[in-house]
Amino acid sequence: MGLVIQKFGGSSVASPELIRSAAAVVASCKAGGQRPLVVVSAMGGETDRLLGLARETAGSPSRRELDMLLSAGEQVSVALFAMALREAGCDARSFLGSQVRILTDSVFSKAHIREVETSRLRAYLASGGIPVVAGFQGVDAEGEITTFGRGGSDTTAVALAAALGADECQILTDVDGIYTTDPRVVPEARRLSRITFEEIIELASQGSRVLQIRAVKFAGKYNVPVRVLHMSGRGAGTLISFEEPGVEAPLVSGIAFSRDEAEITLVGVPNRPGAAAAILGPVSAARIQVDMIVMNAPRDGCVDFSFSVDRADYAQAMDLVRAAALELGAADVLGNDAVAKLSVVGVGMRTHAGIASHMFEALAAEDINVRMVSTSEIKISVLVADKDIDAAVRSLHRAFELDQPAGRRRT
Amino acid sequence: MGLVIQKFGGSSVASPELIRSAAAVVASCKAGGQRPLVVVSAMGGETDRLLGLARETAGSPSRRELDMLLSAGEQVSVALFAMALREAGCDARSFLGSQVRILTDSVFSKAHIREVETSRLRAYLASGGIPVVAGFQGVDAEGEITTFGRGGSDTTAVALAAALGADECQILTDVDGIYTTDPRVVPEARRLSRITFEEIIELASQGSRVLQIRAVKFAGKYNVPVRVLHMSGRGAGTLISFEEPGVEAPLVSGIAFSRDEAEITLVGVPNRPGAAAAILGPVSAARIQVDMIVMNAPRDGCVDFSFSVDRADYAQAMDLVRAAALELGAADVLGNDAVAKLSVVGVGMRTHAGIASHMFEALAAEDINVRMVSTSEIKISVLVADKDIDAAVRSLHRAFELDQPAGRRRT
Repeated sequence: MGLVIQKFGGSSVASPELIRSAAAVVASCKAGGQRPLVVVSAMGGETDRLLGLARETAGSPSRRELDMLLSAGEQVSVALFAMALREAGCDARSFLGSQVRILTDSVFSKAHIREVETSRLRAYLASGGIPVVAGFQGVDAEGEITTFGRGGSDTTAVALAAALGADECQILTDVDGIYTTDPRVVPEARRLSRITFEEIIELASQGSRVLQIRAVKFAGKYNVPVRVLHMSGRGAGTLISFEEPGVEAPLVSGIAFSRDEAEITLVGVPNRPGAAAAILGPVSAARIQVDMIVMNAPRDGCVDFSFSVDRADYAQAMDLVRAAALELGAADVLGNDAVAKLSVVGVGMRTHAGIASHMFEALAAEDINVRMVSTSEIKISVLVADKDIDAAVRSLHRAFELDQPAGRRRT
Repeated sequence: MGLVIQKFGGSSVASPELIRSAAAVVASCKAGGQRPLVVVSAMGGETDRLLGLARETAGSPSRRELDMLLSAGEQVSVALFAMALREAGCDARSFLGSQVRILTDSVFSKAHIREVETSRLRAYLASGGIPVVAGFQGVDAEGEITTFGRGGSDTTAVALAAALGADECQILTDVDGIYTTDPRVVPEARRLSRITFEEIIELASQGSRVLQIRAVKFAGKYNVPVRVLHMSGRGAGTLISFEEPGVEAPLVSGIAFSRDEAEITLVGVPNRPGAAAAILGPVSAARIQVDMIVMNAPRDGCVDFSFSVDRADYAQAMDLVRAAALELGAADVLGNDAVAKLSVVGVGMRTHAGIASHMFEALAAEDINVRMVSTSEIKISVLVADKDIDAAVRSLHRAFELDQPAGRRRT
């Protein structure tokens, strides 16, 4: 009997009725001869409700207390989910992160998993039970409750799949798979039946917010097959696999974009060893995710240094960077939080040239100005004004023939 | 510096605003040179909201899962309370029952405390911090979350006071103390500045629902001084003390009553050893609290056996008793759930006779029929039709001159 991790996000468990539906999906997986283990997020809207209470209570709530507060959300949903499974005739039991136990470091709100103890879960699975594990939360060595940040339930699911050697980790969500791009922007977008880990990492980090990127990296590291499925359990979804793509693989698999970006540029930074570290060190110490980083070749002993961050982190990052700029003797700090990012992703890029020029031609044809560029082996990302993002995505989806069956997407 | 436990009930922490007010009371206790430790219930209404979700999810939710679910309520309130204290400039930290740890048996929903570990709390208090402990919840030896039943936060407060050797355990609530009887029924009711543990136990169990009876018993056992105070922190409240009352003590301290009673009578039970145990055993195994128990002298080898229970437990108790009646060969089982109980309480009764007759005279003068009587050293309880309860309480409050200053209440 295969062990399958089934992770349900907040929108799939937003009400008792939805919880009962999700439990029915799990019960039929069990009836089909598999051994499911469920991971659940807080009920949709609950995390925001709790954050609202925190904001009403204190101006700047402590992160430790926020983790204590927010982890109550999953505690409610696992208890209800286990009740629903029992009502459906299954033997089920809820487990908190601290009960499993999912051991983490002590960085509240953004903790990282150190170790997953599996003995209690294994024993309960062996007895025929369905464990229902609270996503998003763990416990540090001192017994303090920690959380993994938004989307952290995916991380829980993948970590449990890895620790238990599950056959598959299913992410049940409100979409039926990964698409070439967002169908709300490009109606011709198609569902991909397979995608590589490298591609999904690029797509996920770029705004195809189906899966949390940290979870995907974790899955890649431990070779956990992940399948994105509709929460009804129907359809084949999209399998995220480790296999190297064959020659048939398309050059470009998809186009990802994110509207909530901000760019920060330090102008005239004296170019000496450690300058980049001095700029980004405080930002990363504040756990702000830096995304694109661009530095031009030095001129007159100075460089311009640009990077992008999530728009929510913009104000904090600007403060940190201004302080660093002062110390480094930079001429100026410029910022713009009305930008969006778009990325063309595909493992086929590794072995083919010409993608970048094709991309820039398509954008130029739409009169879209490119503000920042960064490239990796399997993607090319550009920053554009956020008003241009929809037109840019549509033009690239067309330019790379993503609306056509696979195999025709060669440049 | 005295250690003071301050327990806030659900209505005192029902909103962020109320939580900030309660935190201000604690902060001023701290500023006054004392060392407070806070115990908090779930936000008012939250437990009912969670129970509603459980009912919508499953017809008969498992008790283990209910405890998992409900304990999330206090988790939210302690986190918010700690945030509010920190906002008020105090060093504060929330603790769950499992973190303290408050070790219990494994009877979900009605667990009993076995042991309270104090090392983490002591260390944190010693550092000048204010611990904010989740009421109502503990953890069993297997790490399962347990709860103590409604009102269980009082038990947490008293148990912590006992384990830490606190100078006082303050129950902050929406009334400013214990009254001679319910002021909504008798406007002349007076606040008692002191009351003995024995009296409060009788009063609490009879419906003066300020304090949970189990908590009071606990307090008496460990000699913990308990003070019932208004949640604003103002006033002297009512101190529940262990001292033996002097000769000045009033005969009758107060009149308690409860509207939600039910009586069950087994008629014609063959009077043999073990009959009472056979009747009450299954009831108490179901954790139904039996209150008054009355058995007359045998006649023709048979007895009538009556007892009262909370009205909420009536249907279940009747089922259990009918089964026992069948086995015992009892003639009939009669039940009535439209009854109310009223008790006259006072430690002075120990040494004075005539209270009972004075009580029955007063009730007779109002044409109130007494259905069942039971007495203890310091109280006399009667069951009456629930339509008569208000008139009965008023007549006895007058008869025992409880509206007058102490010292005039001799019969």
